[in-house]
Amino acid sequence: MAVASQTKALILDAAVKIASRDGIDGLTIGELAKAVGMSKSGLFAHFKGKDQLQLEVLQKARDQFVDVVLRPAFKFSRGEPRVKAMLKNWLEHLNDDGTLQGGRILIAASIELDDRPGPLRDFAKNVQKDLITNVEKAARIAVDEGHFRKDLDVELFAWSMYSHVLGYFHFKRMLDDPKADLHLKRAFNTLLMMSRVSDVNIDTKDKNKRKK
Amino acid sequence: MAVASQTKALILDAAVKIASRDGIDGLTIGELAKAVGMSKSGLFAHFKGKDQLQLEVLQKARDQFVDVVLRPAFKFSRGEPRVKAMLKNWLEHLNDDGTLQGGRILIAASIELDDRPGPLRDFAKNVQKDLITNVEKAARIAVDEGHFRKDLDVELFAWSMYSHVLGYFHFKRMLDDPKADLHLKRAFNTLLMMSRVSDVNIDTKDKNKRKK
Repeated sequence: MAVASQTKALILDAAVKIASRDGIDGLTIGELAKAVGMSKSGLFAHFKGKDQLQLEVLQKARDQFVDVVLRPAFKFSRGEPRVKAMLKNWLEHLNDDGTLQGGRILIAASIELDDRPGPLRDFAKNVQKDLITNVEKAARIAVDEGHFRKDLDVELFAWSMYSHVLGYFHFKRMLDDPKADLHLKRAFNTLLMMSRVSDVNIDTKDKNKRKK
Repeated sequence: MAVASQTKALILDAAVKIASRDGIDGLTIGELAKAVGMSKSGLFAHFKGKDQLQLEVLQKARDQFVDVVLRPAFKFSRGEPRVKAMLKNWLEHLNDDGTLQGGRILIAASIELDDRPGPLRDFAKNVQKDLITNVEKAARIAVDEGHFRKDLDVELFAWSMYSHVLGYFHFKRMLDDPKADLHLKRAFNTLLMMSRVSDVNIDTKDKNKRKK
């Protein structure tokens, strides 16, 4: 790697750290210059401005998330083992207080950017949609492999999983709930249990019919 | 009601509408003055400043939420009927595009105020904690009445319910998901089904033991 790209990689690492702590909006060229001990004009040699910096941080956050949560899960066999690995990796990623806060940055960014349409918001949104699609696909494979119930609503499965992750952030950050970690783990276990063929003897459709 | 308090009530209604659309931070004395056709100094006769205005809007949001979601549920009999009524009222409240956006304002406020400690953040946080405690209590009664499983983790029940509501906001607002309403409804139904005595023949504790 050339010196310029090595330098840029180091700057991006520092930027991800700042965004992980202060959100994508707390990441300014000035703040970053202080963190890496460079002048603002030195940083501008690597990034055209705040917008490009923020977008590259989101891209790096996405890459980190893929590297620590999704990619390792694909080494597990198709079906429930792979779904479980995804949830497990995600739990560990959420609890990692190091610099690997890609997932956290992406969720926070989409909240911060909620009312600001543009390429940054679009990027954060599309990464999350891709991720949800990945979970759906893994759950669909688990159905095909006979691990999950045939009538499992895989979209709802992915929706529930992601809602629980969002709940985790909210309970932990906004409500200072000491049980957030425990509850997320249990919620994931319940979701898996509900989805398995062998664990639950229910037919949702029949239940609904009976009630009408 | 004296004219002054009637006027103030009308001003607060307009303020809740603005906060519901733009968030608690989008609510400024200037914006509100325009909406109600009063001068800024006229508004200052009713509120000491932006902080008091924002706090009173959050209080009104809480009152609205209690009036349309919690209080009507207490008219249903103890146990599952009351829990179901809470979830149903909440769903309807989330879908109400009128001015009754108390719940929405409170969730958005706690996100907006995340990094700003103070009485506003504390208020938004405490209202949410109260609400979660109310759901827990209702679920506990449903256990006592024999409607819900004896081994139901009522804290996890409330946590899951609230996580689904947060997921709903995120999927609907940030990800523009057209199925958010459908998924929230189904997630609530699954949660109720999982909690009932008669619907599911599982023993979570045994499962966990077996795995070890």
